[in-house]
Amino acid sequence: MAKLWGGRFAKNTDAMVEEFTSSIAFDQRMYREDIAGSIAHARMLAKCGIIETEEAETIITGLSGILADIEAGNFSFEVSLEDIHMNIEKRLTERIGPVGGKLHTARSRNDQVALDTHMYLKREIADIAERLVDLQQSILETAEKHKTIIMPGYTHLQRAQPILFSHHLMAYFFMLARDFSRLGGVWERTDIMPLGAGALAGTTFPIDRFFVAEQLGFNKVYENSLDAVSDRDYVLEFLSFASILMMHLSRLSEEIILWSTAEFSFIELDDAHCTGSSIMPQKKNPDVSELVRGKSGRVFGHLMAMLTIAKGLPLAYNKDFQEDKEGLFDTIDTVKFSITVYAAMIKAMRINGNRMEQTLTQDFSNATDMADYLVKKGLPFRQAHEVVGKSVRYCIENGKFLMDLSLEEFRQFSPLFAEDIQDAIRVETCVANRNSFGGTSYQQVELAIKSAQQTVISEREKAKMFTASK
Amino acid sequence: MAKLWGGRFAKNTDAMVEEFTSSIAFDQRMYREDIAGSIAHARMLAKCGIIETEEAETIITGLSGILADIEAGNFSFEVSLEDIHMNIEKRLTERIGPVGGKLHTARSRNDQVALDTHMYLKREIADIAERLVDLQQSILETAEKHKTIIMPGYTHLQRAQPILFSHHLMAYFFMLARDFSRLGGVWERTDIMPLGAGALAGTTFPIDRFFVAEQLGFNKVYENSLDAVSDRDYVLEFLSFASILMMHLSRLSEEIILWSTAEFSFIELDDAHCTGSSIMPQKKNPDVSELVRGKSGRVFGHLMAMLTIAKGLPLAYNKDFQEDKEGLFDTIDTVKFSITVYAAMIKAMRINGNRMEQTLTQDFSNATDMADYLVKKGLPFRQAHEVVGKSVRYCIENGKFLMDLSLEEFRQFSPLFAEDIQDAIRVETCVANRNSFGGTSYQQVELAIKSAQQTVISEREKAKMFTASK
Amino acid sequence: MAKLWGGRFAKNTDAMVEEFTSSIAFDQRMYREDIAGSIAHARMLAKCGIIETEEAETIITGLSGILADIEAGNFSFEVSLEDIHMNIEKRLTERIGPVGGKLHTARSRNDQVALDTHMYLKREIADIAERLVDLQQSILETAEKHKTIIMPGYTHLQRAQPILFSHHLMAYFFMLARDFSRLGGVWERTDIMPLGAGALAGTTFPIDRFFVAEQLGFNKVYENSLDAVSDRDYVLEFLSFASILMMHLSRLSEEIILWSTAEFSFIELDDAHCTGSSIMPQKKNPDVSELVRGKSGRVFGHLMAMLTIAKGLPLAYNKDFQEDKEGLFDTIDTVKFSITVYAAMIKAMRINGNRMEQTLTQDFSNATDMADYLVKKGLPFRQAHEVVGKSVRYCIENGKFLMDLSLEEFRQFSPLFAEDIQDAIRVETCVANRNSFGGTSYQQVELAIKSAQQTVISEREKAKMFTASK
Amino acid sequence: MAKLWGGRFAKNTDAMVEEFTSSIAFDQRMYREDIAGSIAHARMLAKCGIIETEEAETIITGLSGILADIEAGNFSFEVSLEDIHMNIEKRLTERIGPVGGKLHTARSRNDQVALDTHMYLKREIADIAERLVDLQQSILETAEKHKTIIMPGYTHLQRAQPILFSHHLMAYFFMLARDFSRLGGVWERTDIMPLGAGALAGTTFPIDRFFVAEQLGFNKVYENSLDAVSDRDYVLEFLSFASILMMHLSRLSEEIILWSTAEFSFIELDDAHCTGSSIMPQKKNPDVSELVRGKSGRVFGHLMAMLTIAKGLPLAYNKDFQEDKEGLFDTIDTVKFSITVYAAMIKAMRINGNRMEQTLTQDFSNATDMADYLVKKGLPFRQAHEVVGKSVRYCIENGKFLMDLSLEEFRQFSPLFAEDIQDAIRVETCVANRNSFGGTSYQQVELAIKSAQQTVISEREKAKMFTASK
Repeated sequence: MAKLWGGRFAKNTDAMVEEFTSSIAFDQRMYREDIAGSIAHARMLAKCGIIETEEAETIITGLSGILADIEAGNFSFEVSLEDIHMNIEKRLTERIGPVGGKLHTARSRNDQVALDTHMYLKREIADIAERLVDLQQSILETAEKHKTIIMPGYTHLQRAQPILFSHHLMAYFFMLARDFSRLGGVWERTDIMPLGAGALAGTTFPIDRFFVAEQLGFNKVYENSLDAVSDRDYVLEFLSFASILMMHLSRLSEEIILWSTAEFSFIELDDAHCTGSSIMPQKKNPDVSELVRGKSGRVFGHLMAMLTIAKGLPLAYNKDFQEDKEGLFDTIDTVKFSITVYAAMIKAMRINGNRMEQTLTQDFSNATDMADYLVKKGLPFRQAHEVVGKSVRYCIENGKFLMDLSLEEFRQFSPLFAEDIQDAIRVETCVANRNSFGGTSYQQVELAIKSAQQTVISEREKAKMFTASK
Repeated sequence: MAKLWGGRFAKNTDAMVEEFTSSIAFDQRMYREDIAGSIAHARMLAKCGIIETEEAETIITGLSGILADIEAGNFSFEVSLEDIHMNIEKRLTERIGPVGGKLHTARSRNDQVALDTHMYLKREIADIAERLVDLQQSILETAEKHKTIIMPGYTHLQRAQPILFSHHLMAYFFMLARDFSRLGGVWERTDIMPLGAGALAGTTFPIDRFFVAEQLGFNKVYENSLDAVSDRDYVLEFLSFASILMMHLSRLSEEIILWSTAEFSFIELDDAHCTGSSIMPQKKNPDVSELVRGKSGRVFGHLMAMLTIAKGLPLAYNKDFQEDKEGLFDTIDTVKFSITVYAAMIKAMRINGNRMEQTLTQDFSNATDMADYLVKKGLPFRQAHEVVGKSVRYCIENGKFLMDLSLEEFRQFSPLFAEDIQDAIRVETCVANRNSFGGTSYQQVELAIKSAQQTVISEREKAKMFTASK
Repeated sequence: MAKLWGGRFAKNTDAMVEEFTSSIAFDQRMYREDIAGSIAHARMLAKCGIIETEEAETIITGLSGILADIEAGNFSFEVSLEDIHMNIEKRLTERIGPVGGKLHTARSRNDQVALDTHMYLKREIADIAERLVDLQQSILETAEKHKTIIMPGYTHLQRAQPILFSHHLMAYFFMLARDFSRLGGVWERTDIMPLGAGALAGTTFPIDRFFVAEQLGFNKVYENSLDAVSDRDYVLEFLSFASILMMHLSRLSEEIILWSTAEFSFIELDDAHCTGSSIMPQKKNPDVSELVRGKSGRVFGHLMAMLTIAKGLPLAYNKDFQEDKEGLFDTIDTVKFSITVYAAMIKAMRINGNRMEQTLTQDFSNATDMADYLVKKGLPFRQAHEVVGKSVRYCIENGKFLMDLSLEEFRQFSPLFAEDIQDAIRVETCVANRNSFGGTSYQQVELAIKSAQQTVISEREKAKMFTASK
Repeated sequence: MAKLWGGRFAKNTDAMVEEFTSSIAFDQRMYREDIAGSIAHARMLAKCGIIETEEAETIITGLSGILADIEAGNFSFEVSLEDIHMNIEKRLTERIGPVGGKLHTARSRNDQVALDTHMYLKREIADIAERLVDLQQSILETAEKHKTIIMPGYTHLQRAQPILFSHHLMAYFFMLARDFSRLGGVWERTDIMPLGAGALAGTTFPIDRFFVAEQLGFNKVYENSLDAVSDRDYVLEFLSFASILMMHLSRLSEEIILWSTAEFSFIELDDAHCTGSSIMPQKKNPDVSELVRGKSGRVFGHLMAMLTIAKGLPLAYNKDFQEDKEGLFDTIDTVKFSITVYAAMIKAMRINGNRMEQTLTQDFSNATDMADYLVKKGLPFRQAHEVVGKSVRYCIENGKFLMDLSLEEFRQFSPLFAEDIQDAIRVETCVANRNSFGGTSYQQVELAIKSAQQTVISEREKAKMFTASK
């Protein structure tokens, strides 16, 4: 098919090259943004006297018709027309005649695709923001519902100190709150309007970029035209945000997988969120968590791809940038799916509180409290640590736990032990006493939940603002 | 839809989870391998007396029918059936009744998907091997055709020494030859048959894995069942191969982009391999090279994704491994496209030999030869270097090149210069004299081309062997 | 050497394991932060009545002595003491006796190392912020100094439209301004105080975390103890920031390398910023730019490493996190070096304005202006594009440029051309007419420079605030 | 300090640039290779009549003296001399006078550094090969020692089928055997001699590259000089090999961490391979495994860095390549340390066979055997799966395991069950019956161990060959 840019060429594009260089297979996803952007552009051209008002109206009517066609499934995209922009412009001219050719006045595909991508990402950020708060809320509600269950806390996956299950879960709430905060930064640096940069240098027509920005809900306009068409920071920053978020989910996934094992048995996922085995009839596998853990790698890969793509490119636009979209789109889909399915899965899982608490009777996770006890009696911490270390070794050699020791046995290790030692190392005491700000005590977790509820409210407001501005 | 593994479950899978965990959207690409593997498996089950011969025949007829349906476009894949394996098994039972349920005897999806992926990759490796030799041949022929054109050789993108254009191009031939050699290693470690590993532990049925291997053209069989189902080394190794290959192409792309600039003007790409601009009527852009350069990042990203996915997974199969396919498939497509389009593009591009040679009259790339001249007259190299360095500075300050210096001027810098210095630093002399093995002299390039022709012959044989065994 | 935690162990650590697991080789870099953090901790312990005031004073005096020793080079770090924390604690007890053992009351190495890293990074962010503004200012001043030089603007590395050199350079100013803005986000999420989280669960002592935060200049305190010790978001976010920044510098480097070639000859770097060749006496290589371009890969690698390290780790602390530091430190060094050397190099390079402008007489970069001319005479842009495309083809076939065409020749392509066409496509007109906001016109660049000067002022203030709070 | 290449320069290098571009801090590690390469080069120069025999002897004596100085710690490296090559050449001339300046005849630092790196990597590959076999042998011996212990086999970290612990461990043996095989490929493509390529184009001197290759133990010589100086494939391929190997170790690490938890309690690491906590006296942490798991990310990062560095570089040498060394060296160290410490740790760990076997009495991992039982009685597998799935659900609802079911209960689900069902699903039967090739049966594991012993023997021979040729 003849190219819209073909005047200077003596020969047609090779078919394989056409297929290789075409982006219509994936950039058609941005048809809404492309058309909305074109409508705003046409309106501005008329307002600035670059085209006639009637011409603009004809163009806008044509574009609206194309939008309706696409949404009705009555539009066939052509590979030979390369991309969403040329597909729509060609059809526009077919519908409304040569005046369609005026739409591309004072713009280039370089600034047009930048505009589409900015708009598309802003819309998706608004959507992701809402879903992210949903996931935070799901975690928050689950923590509240099981506020007082005690479980072993781990470091190095070795039992460390008793903690509240709710406290553990809330750690993820606060991670996600940082993700939300980072998303705000991405939004801010995505919310810059590139149209009017032309191919790279601006345009000779008396356009009004601020009018276009206002129509499309942008708060800022690029101040440098070369930067406007070659900036992919917002893509990279979104991919960084997504990588960190997926890293958080990969950690939660690892825990859900561990907790679902026969060995831990701390939780049971709902049947609706598991799958079985084609060969082993007893299997119930935490597939969702495994997939999300795996998908973290997928997103990291997209980040690495985009960094490599942008590396070492001279200004301004280079075709390499066409490679920015598929990884971005796939990341958006992956993130949305992952946080949405997790919000449901967390809410539906069963917590085996008894099992968690029972395991604590068979370990040494109260050892720090035994050391703290001695410190409070005046022993320097480093010496108290040594005393308890020896007690633990004694217990292991004699098949006991600390709670099993008699007062005499305690006193073999230090004369500072008194009758109250038994109470001091009870699991409930251990938890209640970690009452420093942000600690695992009942009171602190209560406070943290209150604080989190406030966070949810302010995040919802911010998400609403994103949605409004898209 | 009821799951084939649903006996133990009290509740259906959530629809979103079904969609999230399903792989049918991408693993349907391996339908040929899945069916061929199932046919070999059925045949083996009968041979070993695990099912009846007639049962095997019924199954094989059923599978062949399904194959025909898929190739005719008469097969609709169901997301609720999760993957290619379950889609085909379900349909088989619909076609031939409960005996279809015997096909899954003595195997699991874990070893089945491993088999499919191994077979699929072997087939694609064979294809890629052929195309890779085509590209090498295109380079070789282009070098031969323009054997004696002289161009500036660069280091740090600064003109360094005059070289033959053919010598430069042949550097890529030898890089690709290493890629071919690496591909042989990937093939070797892909050519291992996993079926019979069952879910992870082997099977209680008296199967014959070597019979299956023979039927399917495998030269080796996994020696450990857990390894068989959890090995993704061959995927990673293919992605590493592809990353290095794409890195080579990214370098060639960079050069083609540079050579196509107005500033260099060393080559002109064929119109068929370029595209234009929507706004700038004069533009003819080397899009293919830019895209290939960009796509190197895409492939690096897939490698990084797969490494991350596999990191830290306990034995044996984990659902995370489902994430291995999309990146692999996309890499295969990217590599095939890139090498194929390059083979055509290299052949069709025009070489501006005059322009290359003309630039050499305006630079200092014969400076090393001037130093070598002095060394041959007895000056230690380090002092010769110093003498020439000063001559160059003198020239720059006086707006001259080395060829412009009079004998007196030469002698200002060293009394060792004689009349033959002018001939010694002529561009043709510089090239002809670099006659060390692998150097740029006419004679060495001739030898290198001969050697490369032999390489092509032996690579073609190896590629044929891959194709035969797939 | 006996371990401070050795009470429970029956056997010493293997020497190879000691070396492998020790971090003192690299975490000694944070000695200042470790000591400042310990002093604040001791002061708080006394304030809260957990230790005696005199004990705190003894500890603080001891720590100050150790600080002096380290800075004087009189401290030998021991691998067997694992890390900076244990090295200092051990020495403290040697200096002041058993009371030194009280310092570790109510804290763990898990929250201690988190504190050190937060503090260290905050200090480096403040330093980087200052240097980043220096680089922006260097760019800004260079742009101002060469405000009216015209150069070819490129897309796809093909000449596209004439632009101001200052406009091109300012594109980097605005990229770096986004980097600065991102750095602010990193700072905000680094400025959270972890101490008091203990090993993972908080502490049983009545500590005051806000007092510690205030002393150390932190604005926020972690709200969840598990999160506090296992959060590495701030490291990842810094690495993301640094990757994007290095990507920008890799682009600038690519351009400087291109511009320094014999073929472009747009700039000449100062001798002080180049190196020569051991063999080719004429060489002057843009090594700094090549290294910075290469170092972008190094930083991307550190980001990828840290993402992989964090992937799939259960709460709370895992030893894997020890791997967070070397990549972070190396990234800090790389970024600081790169931006500092660039600030000097940009200022010192010579701009060959004549060469830039002369190239524009030999190309078609005024073709868009010729099309715009027709549009202003009423032709739809798409048709104008076609007309100019044909003119360009005509010129190429006849060895001409657009400026060489006679009015008759122009009129062969369209009757709309009149006498003023020659003036409309003069390079200076092309530049002056791109007067849309953010465009390359003299006026717009003037405005951009003014805006950038304001940006520098407000960034300097922000950087000062970082420095004050560290 | 005056540069050896300074003749053409009017100004000294900036001190910061000197530090930034210098590589002596890390490339001094290759001093042995640099000197051995120079000695071979000098010998060749004399043999070919390019320098006098006595000159060569003086040079060689001088170089040997420098080697002795370095090894005795009597050599101070200078940053201003940039790299190991210039440091040694400068010193050589100081020792032996101007004749030292003849050593650099017919070579460049570009081919010299390539030679050093090839030689260095070959030596390290030989070392790694030996250590890798040691690790395989440690695994093999541990498997042999605990040949008949039964443990639960896992998929999705859910108990799947009973397997032998030795079978599980041997899966890692076979992974490492593939690593060894890959290392052979890396060795082959590292064993190519670059010297004589000069800066990029070969040399005008009548050198003998094959003589140099023979002296230095190389089997091949680069056939293209541009390729010789710009090839970094061998670095990338080594990093790919190392990434896959570290990925394997990250999986083993994950398992060791899991098995060491209180919940699994399958193994206990030796005290010598664990460390404790500064605060929790009871802790014994599997630090080595956590670090190795973390260090996989470090190595992936180096691979990604090197791919990015090489991406898009034009021929031939670019300074970016200087960034190839630190990541390579760090990867070598990391790999060597990791495999060596693992070889010791695996041997020393205690296996809790009783605990492993006891867990199997409390799960459904014999469910597949129950289905296989039905299949052997004639039921299609898919129906047998359904029957067992329902039995499992029944058991869960009634708090039973399959072994607890009475014959009547069995028959409720299928009339095919007979008295022998109980024996068919005993754990020992399950293991013994998985007697397909590569399966977990006692007999198959015995065979696998025999095969592995042969593999060790042939690997040792190959490693010896590497060592001999280095």
